[in-house]
Amino acid sequence: METLTVGQYDLIYNAFSFAFATLAAATIFFWLGRSQVAPQYKTAMTITGLVTFIAAYHYFRIGESWAAAFDTADASLQTTGYAFNQAYRYVDWLLTVPLLLVELILVMGLSRSETISRATRLGLLAALMIILGYPGEVATTAGARWFWGIASMIPFLWIIYELFVGLSSSIKDQPEDARGLVSVARYLVIGSWAFYPVVYFAGAVGLDGGTATVVIEVGYTIADITAKAVFGVLIFMIAQRKSAEYFARQNTVVQPAE
Amino acid sequence: METLTVGQYDLIYNAFSFAFATLAAATIFFWLGRSQVAPQYKTAMTITGLVTFIAAYHYFRIGESWAAAFDTADASLQTTGYAFNQAYRYVDWLLTVPLLLVELILVMGLSRSETISRATRLGLLAALMIILGYPGEVATTAGARWFWGIASMIPFLWIIYELFVGLSSSIKDQPEDARGLVSVARYLVIGSWAFYPVVYFAGAVGLDGGTATVVIEVGYTIADITAKAVFGVLIFMIAQRKSAEYFARQNTVVQPAE
Repeated sequence: METLTVGQYDLIYNAFSFAFATLAAATIFFWLGRSQVAPQYKTAMTITGLVTFIAAYHYFRIGESWAAAFDTADASLQTTGYAFNQAYRYVDWLLTVPLLLVELILVMGLSRSETISRATRLGLLAALMIILGYPGEVATTAGARWFWGIASMIPFLWIIYELFVGLSSSIKDQPEDARGLVSVARYLVIGSWAFYPVVYFAGAVGLDGGTATVVIEVGYTIADITAKAVFGVLIFMIAQRKSAEYFARQNTVVQPAE
Repeated sequence: METLTVGQYDLIYNAFSFAFATLAAATIFFWLGRSQVAPQYKTAMTITGLVTFIAAYHYFRIGESWAAAFDTADASLQTTGYAFNQAYRYVDWLLTVPLLLVELILVMGLSRSETISRATRLGLLAALMIILGYPGEVATTAGARWFWGIASMIPFLWIIYELFVGLSSSIKDQPEDARGLVSVARYLVIGSWAFYPVVYFAGAVGLDGGTATVVIEVGYTIADITAKAVFGVLIFMIAQRKSAEYFARQNTVVQPAE
């Protein structure tokens, strides 16, 4: 079996550190951005920042766990005997993936009842998707990885259906200036999520050893940054465009009568 | 081969600590400054602070990695066997250099379409410049250092062209009060960036051992502080000058009618 080299170890360590820095910076960006959107979009910005905050925390922990699992003294890589904690990723996703969908629903500004029903349904489906994926991630046989992976695809496909069929009439109701971005956000969710099963099944098709580890860890990291930080920037841009009218009205209101 | 002395080790360690303190302080300065600029410049100030935030994080990590690589007990410098992680710098630049250009574009207050196209182009060129430089930084031969260094100069020269030719008409459109500072900001980008290849090629012209390490580490540190914290102060000054009219108008509005 091919084993991890020091260079591969370093690449993964640096990817984790990069993700921490990006996600922490994104968190501040979103929370400061709250003051630049209309009141009805402030919760969407708060949650967008929560997602990157939770992910930044987990990448910090993942980096620590990675460093504790290996010893790199004298440019030779040895395992320390402490296992790298893969579960951090799933704990993170269990929290962040439902919230990601909630932030998309919130920024759309639907009616209260539609917001609650769609956010609840999408949130539960996302949580189910993560829970079903985990047993496969830690499975030692390819068969188990396939079984749980495919089980996890059922809520995943349902989410895609909800986003593309369920939401399509609501997207048509978005202001023209924001409609294109809302649609892009939906594709970004699917595009970045499509990454996860690819990485996941890389472990099931027999890719093994150092290269597999690099593909899995760096792949998940890129997917997380895209699905959380890049997605969040889109949410912010949507919220800002939809807030333009609110701020314009505010400025008009305080104009003195001639 | 000349090796590092305890004095040189200390000088570099203290430079890293100085950079962390400066960049962390600059971060707070820029974020607090958000409330002193007009709404359209708040994102520029947020990003200015993100750049120094990300850099402060990396200088903290760089300092820790430096300390872990050497043992200075009894005033005798010994390596510990753990490599100093040079990659932190490149991970930092990959994030901060594109953002630096974005903050300059944002503070110029161009049209939405021009902002997006220029920020995207400059951001991608900057990322490409960093990615091409990295293989040379970790290369063990001077030839590889020259090859990747020169490859990295191509996007660098393109960025200079964009800043001096592409942006020149937009700079003429800046309010008179801010025009000079925007032009200075542009020169500061180029001036501080010119520092990086000098330091980079110091490793390719055969400068070696302790002196080379001091030149590289302290040189990069001075360049980072100039390009991020000093540059950010300029961005804040530009944003403030361009906000004067906004605040004057706001004050007029709340005046009671005579």
